[in-house]
Amino acid sequence: MKILYNDGHVAECPAEEEVHVLRHTAAHIMAQAIKRLWPHADFAFGPATENGFFYDVDLGDVKLTDEDLARIEAEMRKICKENLPLKAYILPRAEAIALMEKRGEKYKVEHIGDLAEDAPISFYEQGKDANGEAEYIDMCVGPHLTYTKALKAFKVTQQSGAYWKNDSENKMLTRINGVAFRSQEELEAWEKQQEEARARDHRKIGKDMRLFMTDDLIGRGLPMFLPNGYTVWQELENYIKAKERKLGYLHVMTPCVGTVDLYRTSGHWDHYKENMFPAMEVEGESFVLRPMNCPHHMMIYANRPHSYRELPIRIGEIAHDFRFESSGTLKGIERGRHFCQNDAHLFVTPEQIKNEVSAVCDLIFDVYKDFNITDYRCVLSLRDPADKKKYHQDDEMWNRAEDALREVLTELGIQFTEEIGEAAFYGPKLDVNVKPAVGAEYTLSTCQLDFCLPAKFALTYIDKDGSQKTPVVLHRAILGSLDRFMAFMIEETKGRFPTWLAPTQVKVLPVSEKTLGYAQAVAEKLDNAGIRVVLDGSNEKIGYKIREAQQVDRVPYMLVLGAKEAEQGNISVRDRNGETSEMSLDAFTEMVVDEIRTRKF
Amino acid sequence: MKILYNDGHVAECPAEEEVHVLRHTAAHIMAQAIKRLWPHADFAFGPATENGFFYDVDLGDVKLTDEDLARIEAEMRKICKENLPLKAYILPRAEAIALMEKRGEKYKVEHIGDLAEDAPISFYEQGKDANGEAEYIDMCVGPHLTYTKALKAFKVTQQSGAYWKNDSENKMLTRINGVAFRSQEELEAWEKQQEEARARDHRKIGKDMRLFMTDDLIGRGLPMFLPNGYTVWQELENYIKAKERKLGYLHVMTPCVGTVDLYRTSGHWDHYKENMFPAMEVEGESFVLRPMNCPHHMMIYANRPHSYRELPIRIGEIAHDFRFESSGTLKGIERGRHFCQNDAHLFVTPEQIKNEVSAVCDLIFDVYKDFNITDYRCVLSLRDPADKKKYHQDDEMWNRAEDALREVLTELGIQFTEEIGEAAFYGPKLDVNVKPAVGAEYTLSTCQLDFCLPAKFALTYIDKDGSQKTPVVLHRAILGSLDRFMAFMIEETKGRFPTWLAPTQVKVLPVSEKTLGYAQAVAEKLDNAGIRVVLDGSNEKIGYKIREAQQVDRVPYMLVLGAKEAEQGNISVRDRNGETSEMSLDAFTEMVVDEIRTRKF
Repeated sequence: MKILYNDGHVAECPAEEEVHVLRHTAAHIMAQAIKRLWPHADFAFGPATENGFFYDVDLGDVKLTDEDLARIEAEMRKICKENLPLKAYILPRAEAIALMEKRGEKYKVEHIGDLAEDAPISFYEQGKDANGEAEYIDMCVGPHLTYTKALKAFKVTQQSGAYWKNDSENKMLTRINGVAFRSQEELEAWEKQQEEARARDHRKIGKDMRLFMTDDLIGRGLPMFLPNGYTVWQELENYIKAKERKLGYLHVMTPCVGTVDLYRTSGHWDHYKENMFPAMEVEGESFVLRPMNCPHHMMIYANRPHSYRELPIRIGEIAHDFRFESSGTLKGIERGRHFCQNDAHLFVTPEQIKNEVSAVCDLIFDVYKDFNITDYRCVLSLRDPADKKKYHQDDEMWNRAEDALREVLTELGIQFTEEIGEAAFYGPKLDVNVKPAVGAEYTLSTCQLDFCLPAKFALTYIDKDGSQKTPVVLHRAILGSLDRFMAFMIEETKGRFPTWLAPTQVKVLPVSEKTLGYAQAVAEKLDNAGIRVVLDGSNEKIGYKIREAQQVDRVPYMLVLGAKEAEQGNISVRDRNGETSEMSLDAFTEMVVDEIRTRKF
Repeated sequence: MKILYNDGHVAECPAEEEVHVLRHTAAHIMAQAIKRLWPHADFAFGPATENGFFYDVDLGDVKLTDEDLARIEAEMRKICKENLPLKAYILPRAEAIALMEKRGEKYKVEHIGDLAEDAPISFYEQGKDANGEAEYIDMCVGPHLTYTKALKAFKVTQQSGAYWKNDSENKMLTRINGVAFRSQEELEAWEKQQEEARARDHRKIGKDMRLFMTDDLIGRGLPMFLPNGYTVWQELENYIKAKERKLGYLHVMTPCVGTVDLYRTSGHWDHYKENMFPAMEVEGESFVLRPMNCPHHMMIYANRPHSYRELPIRIGEIAHDFRFESSGTLKGIERGRHFCQNDAHLFVTPEQIKNEVSAVCDLIFDVYKDFNITDYRCVLSLRDPADKKKYHQDDEMWNRAEDALREVLTELGIQFTEEIGEAAFYGPKLDVNVKPAVGAEYTLSTCQLDFCLPAKFALTYIDKDGSQKTPVVLHRAILGSLDRFMAFMIEETKGRFPTWLAPTQVKVLPVSEKTLGYAQAVAEKLDNAGIRVVLDGSNEKIGYKIREAQQVDRVPYMLVLGAKEAEQGNISVRDRNGETSEMSLDAFTEMVVDEIRTRKF
């Protein structure tokens, strides 16, 4: 693929840059199309992005509709078909300013003012107007395609608002986004992926399966778990609590409110306030919804004296927390303002750090095996020493904690990368990041080493030699927040939960009213075996009942019971893939009970 | 017993008034004693109360100590021993004022001003001073004892602050309380009861057993459940959820926050605001900690259309709620600002009311049987039609709801009394009040009939005939709040929980280090059987270990393992009453597992 550099020379494009150049030229072609449709349009910046491109445009009072976006795309196709050659040249600063002023491009003129005095300023042109002058000129460093026909596969996707230079003090412009690919095949693959993402979207599946709901009258960012969703939730809660109990964790329940003084003591009020709800004044006391429950657990430790003999003490809680998230970032149960963390704080002696970190890592990977999570990576998250606001200031403490955690992870043979500026305000962390089926990587599990809060809360233990010492605290979360983990599981499985997690495990579908009695007897037997069973006794046709159970409820097993089954006293089993088999009820019951017991994934 | 009326005549006291007269005279004797000790003391009111008496006194700048209370009591005994005769007479108004002014009793003078012009004003005197004048004169309607020696059994108990005429605009006086009884035996019985109350106090036992803690830094009224307490809590949660699941309840989980608009819609903002925390403003939205979760459940019902075929729908939740309670009324986990209700809302057709109320009553009495609760009574709580502020205003709705509930309870053959002004703001209730071992009767369970909120939330269902109707809602709580129920259970059992509820069910106590290995093996076997077992491997003497387990931890079973047991491979079992027996480990395990499974009380 040939491309045009800003000094006017043409050369072969390095393969790895092709798609970027394509997308950048697509932005210019889109701008030309917009200019044809709205001649007063004034352009700001228009770069290539990860999948496509955008242009920020000042359209005056014009508000674009979906039809307008389609018109822009159609005009772009026309420009491509016209196969206009691109032309590039560099101008001296004064001439560059004159040109942009002449064409009324006030954002470009302002931008020149931001550039270094001696920066070369280049331009790209496309097409000629009726007077033989350049139809479209963009100030741009390039490179670009040589002809507009070289752009073959693209789409205008959406519009949104964006401030000039990303500064909310400035004017709000219209950002128009598009995608572009090397080929139609690549575009189609992307479209398919988008469709897949929409199909996996936990908000859509959550609504289908009646897992949870949100309503602005309850409050934005405050999802409510419906009976089906709470069934999944309780299974997750019981699962992780049982794992933790076996490992010597002690579970507690603490209120999701504390005094502001508590968060002053912990440092959250200094370092984390922008993520918190406002305080509530009551009888001269200031209360606040808690964003984290570490301070509550610190106070539990501080409630009585401790001897080294008792350590490690592992305090766990499925903890209700509230964080202020701006409404634009809220997303179902993946990102809400209320959520429940699978949290624990381990109070240990310095000598116990290694063993306890090791046990936490084992638990994380053990859980991942149970949920078949294989696409993850470990990150050692360190402070940014230059950020004086975000982090508790104590270089010696930080060096000690970071070195200790790095050393332990290395000794344990865990592969990790290091990332600066990702630590908690009180200490470094091991983060385990997963790559979900849809969307960007995020941190699922974490194990944090904290030399800071125990001192702030004056925690102590009496050591072997009778001296008073300060314990170290490990903060850890395995499933992260149960809410977000459920969102993750919904998207990974498309709502086709493993049997043990499924809200309804078996749906009994009598073919007609004649087999309703038999169906009731079957359902009762399954219920007695502890299986979550639902009988669909409606008057709907069997085809509808199956579709509903399979595609909407995503039930692992459907029992389709007709006259034949009722006569023979056996069952016809259908799974979510549509595979069917005949079975005795006993054999089926045993199979399902076993799947539940072993938490088969 | 002879008594002296205010016109000076003496007569036999009716038996049922004896103790009241005794206590009233005790107040006078106390006032006389105070006057001897602090001659400037100025007296307000001094009546008899349920168990004793008090006097509100203006002592100027004097702050009383515990020693001062003892001095008052000693002086009272002296006055009794002096056996002063009481003298009574009535004076005309002008003379009465003159007498009180002369003696500097400004509160009494003010009080005369509050009396009707023609009210007879009478006085009681005790003793003579050095000048032969009355030592102590009180303005009082009587009657009283005839001689101070007739007061035999009394005690000065405490002091507190009280405003003159109970009005916070007035001066704060010192209220001095005492108790008095007919005999020393009665006083001793009362003292024993007080001691019992202190011994049962759930705050003391909760601390002993490490069930929960409070700390002002977390916030007043915000208890935290420690591992032992949360174990009990989870047992209660699992117990009631399992019962409800069997009865067709669907459990949900909703956030303990809602918008102010939600509570405006429900009417809580109008009728219940003084019990709520202040609102939090976020991005132009007002959020508030919820005092009840009815509105959340209404929104769940409203989330999709319903047919009569689906009703009744029973939505249950162990729901986190927050209420503002003034700090003076807070009491451990019995009355906190955060608690979890065992709540449910039943959405029913009018025809289903009777069956559903009946099923709720059955559940209540079934649960009471499980917990051996026998001392309770049923109350039909009605609105006070005169109270226009507290109740939703719709007389027709109220009459309909009250009649319906009364009729159902009568049909069900439930014995109940009716109480005016005890209804919820949205409807009448059946309250089941229990009489605890300590303190006053209170409402444990409730079943409320609500024709109000369903309309406010525009809830509907499509009836058989295709018409759209409004469901009726039953609000019900069985265990009340889990927190308060736990407090109740602690006080009823003195912390000696039945085995299934006990935080630690078995404590294994090796007599010395020699049997530690055997003890570990025993503990492991019990743990494997699902029994909550703790091994006391400390170096303490066996007597100390037993005392700790029996009296502090209140563990149902202790296994004392010495050389003999280790040799023979059996165990020595000791229960909380100190009864011991020899047993095989298998038989013991089977017995305990059975107690847990059947939730033996």
